[in-house]
Amino acid sequence: MSTIIQQIKPADIEAESFRIIDREHGAHPFDAATWSVVRRVIHATGDFSFADTLRFAPGALAAGLAAIRAGKNILTDVNMTASGISKHLLARYGGKVLCGVADPEVAEQARRRGLTRSEVAIDLLLPENIGIVAIGNAPTALLRVMERRQTLAPEQRPELIIGVPVGFVNAAESKELLSQREYPHITALGRKGGSPTAAAIVNALLRLAVAESG
Amino acid sequence: MSTIIQQIKPADIEAESFRIIDREHGAHPFDAATWSVVRRVIHATGDFSFADTLRFAPGALAAGLAAIRAGKNILTDVNMTASGISKHLLARYGGKVLCGVADPEVAEQARRRGLTRSEVAIDLLLPENIGIVAIGNAPTALLRVMERRQTLAPEQRPELIIGVPVGFVNAAESKELLSQREYPHITALGRKGGSPTAAAIVNALLRLAVAESG
Repeated sequence: MSTIIQQIKPADIEAESFRIIDREHGAHPFDAATWSVVRRVIHATGDFSFADTLRFAPGALAAGLAAIRAGKNILTDVNMTASGISKHLLARYGGKVLCGVADPEVAEQARRRGLTRSEVAIDLLLPENIGIVAIGNAPTALLRVMERRQTLAPEQRPELIIGVPVGFVNAAESKELLSQREYPHITALGRKGGSPTAAAIVNALLRLAVAESG
Repeated sequence: MSTIIQQIKPADIEAESFRIIDREHGAHPFDAATWSVVRRVIHATGDFSFADTLRFAPGALAAGLAAIRAGKNILTDVNMTASGISKHLLARYGGKVLCGVADPEVAEQARRRGLTRSEVAIDLLLPENIGIVAIGNAPTALLRVMERRQTLAPEQRPELIIGVPVGFVNAAESKELLSQREYPHITALGRKGGSPTAAAIVNALLRLAVAESG
């Protein structure tokens, strides 16, 4: 069997990937901005099924872009999601990526309170000028964000919740609940999701913000 | 619509996820150790298709376990994969996770040489007592590892190459090539893969090493 490796410059790999996705996926119901998010998730996962499962609440993209432009921070549940976010793009606007899950104080509180470390990290960091919450791993963290959001004053609430935890225990259920909320959110129904999905959604928003800034 | 969230203790979520995967997947051709790797990938991705696409070269698990027990280091292509590896389990054996992709010297060399940062990071770190290489993102990094391996003295070669890059340009092709090699490797055919897949494979090996030591 002969396997052909394409010769392509590093800087052109992403654009070529997007061309392949556009060509193979064909017609879709999304506007251009939304498709740029969906396409980046497909690119990060190699999985076209996200075109069927991703859900965007009305105003979700605008809310995310406003949060980025306002220089607000992004809160993630796990370090893998934080690692995947383009910090150099976010830094243009003044925001930072926050993730408390590896903090020793968080681990100690989690043991004491019988919670997951993700839940405790959410509690501690949600008041830290968060514009976007990006949950890529832990359903417990997503449920916690949804619960805590209700207790925050309106001006303290994150503009956008991206909830795409992955897995077999409460992932699909937590995302089903998020999809029923009226506030700005982006989710992916079913079991699939994950850190690359969460990071891809944030990175697509960052590219949209940069593109619109000119 | 009513969505039911399961009440389950944080410490029990993983075991319950594994029970669900066992039950839904049913019969499989893998031995117990190999299934523990496949199952952890399914757990990390929510995607049963990895049971069909994962490929294990003969001796791959034994080679990985030997590398871990010898205290060798693990080299990853991207920080997302490095983030996902259980450093506290690896530390029991003395190994470290290495990833050079964010090193400013690597970026500079990549620009100068017209290579990806992943490729340059591989070149610089492959001689650093690497037992396992885990490529979760960049096909170029996997191709580089396969090429460089040939130039290393036998005693310098990594014991195991885990190659599961994701995407549309050269990901499937690079993994097809790896699957044809006779040396110890683990790969996932097709476009799917990614950092969580690479980290899950390493973490499953670490759990096997701990279980066998215990």
